[in-house]
Amino acid sequence: MKGKVAVIGAGMIKFGELFEKSFDDMIEEAYLNCLKSVDNGIDPKEIEAGWLGSARGMSGAALSMPTSLWDIGISRNENGCATGSDAFRNACFAVASGVIDVALVCGVEKMRDASGGLIAIAAMADIWRARARTMPAFFALRGTRHMHLYGSTREHLAMVSVKNHHNGSLYPYAHYRFETTIDKVLKAPIVSWPLGLYDCCPVTDGACCVLITSAEKAKKYTDTPVYVAGSGLSVDSWMRHNDENLSGFPASVIAGKQAYKMAGLEPKDIKVAEIHDCFTITEILDYEDLGFAKKGEGHLLLEEGIVELSGSLPMNPSGGLIAKGHPIGASGVAQIAEIYEQLRGTAGKVQISDVDVGLQHNIGLGRGATGSVSCVHILKR
Amino acid sequence: MKGKVAVIGAGMIKFGELFEKSFDDMIEEAYLNCLKSVDNGIDPKEIEAGWLGSARGMSGAALSMPTSLWDIGISRNENGCATGSDAFRNACFAVASGVIDVALVCGVEKMRDASGGLIAIAAMADIWRARARTMPAFFALRGTRHMHLYGSTREHLAMVSVKNHHNGSLYPYAHYRFETTIDKVLKAPIVSWPLGLYDCCPVTDGACCVLITSAEKAKKYTDTPVYVAGSGLSVDSWMRHNDENLSGFPASVIAGKQAYKMAGLEPKDIKVAEIHDCFTITEILDYEDLGFAKKGEGHLLLEEGIVELSGSLPMNPSGGLIAKGHPIGASGVAQIAEIYEQLRGTAGKVQISDVDVGLQHNIGLGRGATGSVSCVHILKR
Repeated sequence: MKGKVAVIGAGMIKFGELFEKSFDDMIEEAYLNCLKSVDNGIDPKEIEAGWLGSARGMSGAALSMPTSLWDIGISRNENGCATGSDAFRNACFAVASGVIDVALVCGVEKMRDASGGLIAIAAMADIWRARARTMPAFFALRGTRHMHLYGSTREHLAMVSVKNHHNGSLYPYAHYRFETTIDKVLKAPIVSWPLGLYDCCPVTDGACCVLITSAEKAKKYTDTPVYVAGSGLSVDSWMRHNDENLSGFPASVIAGKQAYKMAGLEPKDIKVAEIHDCFTITEILDYEDLGFAKKGEGHLLLEEGIVELSGSLPMNPSGGLIAKGHPIGASGVAQIAEIYEQLRGTAGKVQISDVDVGLQHNIGLGRGATGSVSCVHILKR
Repeated sequence: MKGKVAVIGAGMIKFGELFEKSFDDMIEEAYLNCLKSVDNGIDPKEIEAGWLGSARGMSGAALSMPTSLWDIGISRNENGCATGSDAFRNACFAVASGVIDVALVCGVEKMRDASGGLIAIAAMADIWRARARTMPAFFALRGTRHMHLYGSTREHLAMVSVKNHHNGSLYPYAHYRFETTIDKVLKAPIVSWPLGLYDCCPVTDGACCVLITSAEKAKKYTDTPVYVAGSGLSVDSWMRHNDENLSGFPASVIAGKQAYKMAGLEPKDIKVAEIHDCFTITEILDYEDLGFAKKGEGHLLLEEGIVELSGSLPMNPSGGLIAKGHPIGASGVAQIAEIYEQLRGTAGKVQISDVDVGLQHNIGLGRGATGSVSCVHILKR
């Protein structure tokens, strides 16, 4: 797959509490923005297949209505919170196989208005509640464990929140566009200790589309395509007796290694990354799981400022899930879109200078936490 | 993709009202049967990735628990009633891309006991009921239209039911294993005219697994692999004003053409087929949509006996959805499994002699019937 697939367009919508926009409205807006983003233009008739990433069913036909893309094949993927990334990965396989030349990947979720059908997520939440483990509580356990083993503190968590809110304040599509401070984060109401209100991503509506093509076709659409250099996906077991130290996600380590191996690259080659920060602790664990920091030293990157916009390895320039929001199916696709913009130099106020390789990373919980899913892509200019 | 992917194993479980078996139980049994089916044996450690086809969420991790396949990537596909076929197709892309050498595809559905989470299907049913269109009512419309335009009768529908129940009576994994008669079918209670009780597939629990590999690796596992020659997927619009004559499914025509084109084959080359017969009328429409009969002449194949086990083009030797049952995610994978057995000559009492090319066809309804999905695969010895 390495180098065989290129991203040639990306379209975001402003994430937020979009009560005035339907599931279809969001897809349509992201789709039209995506079409418009293609440098040399694209005729929708050139799109040969689609992949819909959404926790909401039913079927790929849900992508056809708002895009008028009938009479082509549309698959639907769902893989917990890594849904959008899984859809992107499957679309890349199809293009790399030589069967499909131009594909649309759409991630979308209506989170704030469940009447339209966010039944899958509601169901998941039910399973979790029945086991007395809400999402914040689950991740909080990882936080206390990291603190106990490695000496991280609530201040380190707060530094993730302050950084990502700062980035989000500069990113036009973010749900939350305000700055915060260490003091405010620490004094916010506790959701599940050590996670306070500003340590948690919001509940957000959103959609994002990207267009991918075979490497050969890419130059027709743009002089600056971005290539898919690596892809990884893994499931791990969250059964307590299988877990080495409860801190970090084995699936992320494996998915990362798969992606690095395919790309022939190492963590030190990555210049910018969009990583899964559903909670502040998650981002610190990601640093370690993805090889940006040694085990138990993730929080030190924050002390050193390395992961800020001005640092040597900026993490979540878009504000991440913490500030941008986390509309399940859209989250992974939006991460791809942001890395695409960064590598093309079109990321606006959050542009990192001189970046040629970027990484995207997306975690999902599986089936009442008996397993976690992690998906990683490496993009290259 | 043509010829790059091979099926090297398949494992069914007996479909039925499996109140005594959980979602996980069904997967485990199909998985173990699939492993055992591989001629030269396979170590589960050789499986590099999995695809789960199920209308039930959440995430690919649901396949890990009953198979102990952790630390590999598992995607989940859902595409209405074509869910299992879509999972198979995406797995084939991954193998054809060269990234994955050995993949497991599992289709599974718990239909008779919704307490465990068949919420997605329940949701779909809700949408349908709200629009006063149940599944039988929707397909019945197609039936009356076909009768009006082309002169087919309830007797023709009954011939599909009698044929498929006969086949099912010989197929060990079928839900219903009894014969019926034209008279019984015609006198059965009407569900939605012209469809009576025996014109409708049952509500069935089931699971099925298949193992696929790259063509190069296949010979390691068996001397008689079956190759994926063609694959097609399409969505069409079921908006009434877009529909030419309401009889037939444009998505099936398109998906069929895609698959025939990839395979370099024509309908006349197909020796056996497993096609989507959720209702008897559907099978007649399939004959026309897939090119086995001219438009408006599908029912004539039944008069001529061509589609019986002893005919020149046997359709649904396994009993089809009508007799075998239709556990959403499992249905498409089970069709692939049956064609695999037919082409290897291991289909037992329903074996068709001298078959080298087979076709699989699976329809799904999308999003409250605004679109339909159709998936076709052609397998070759």
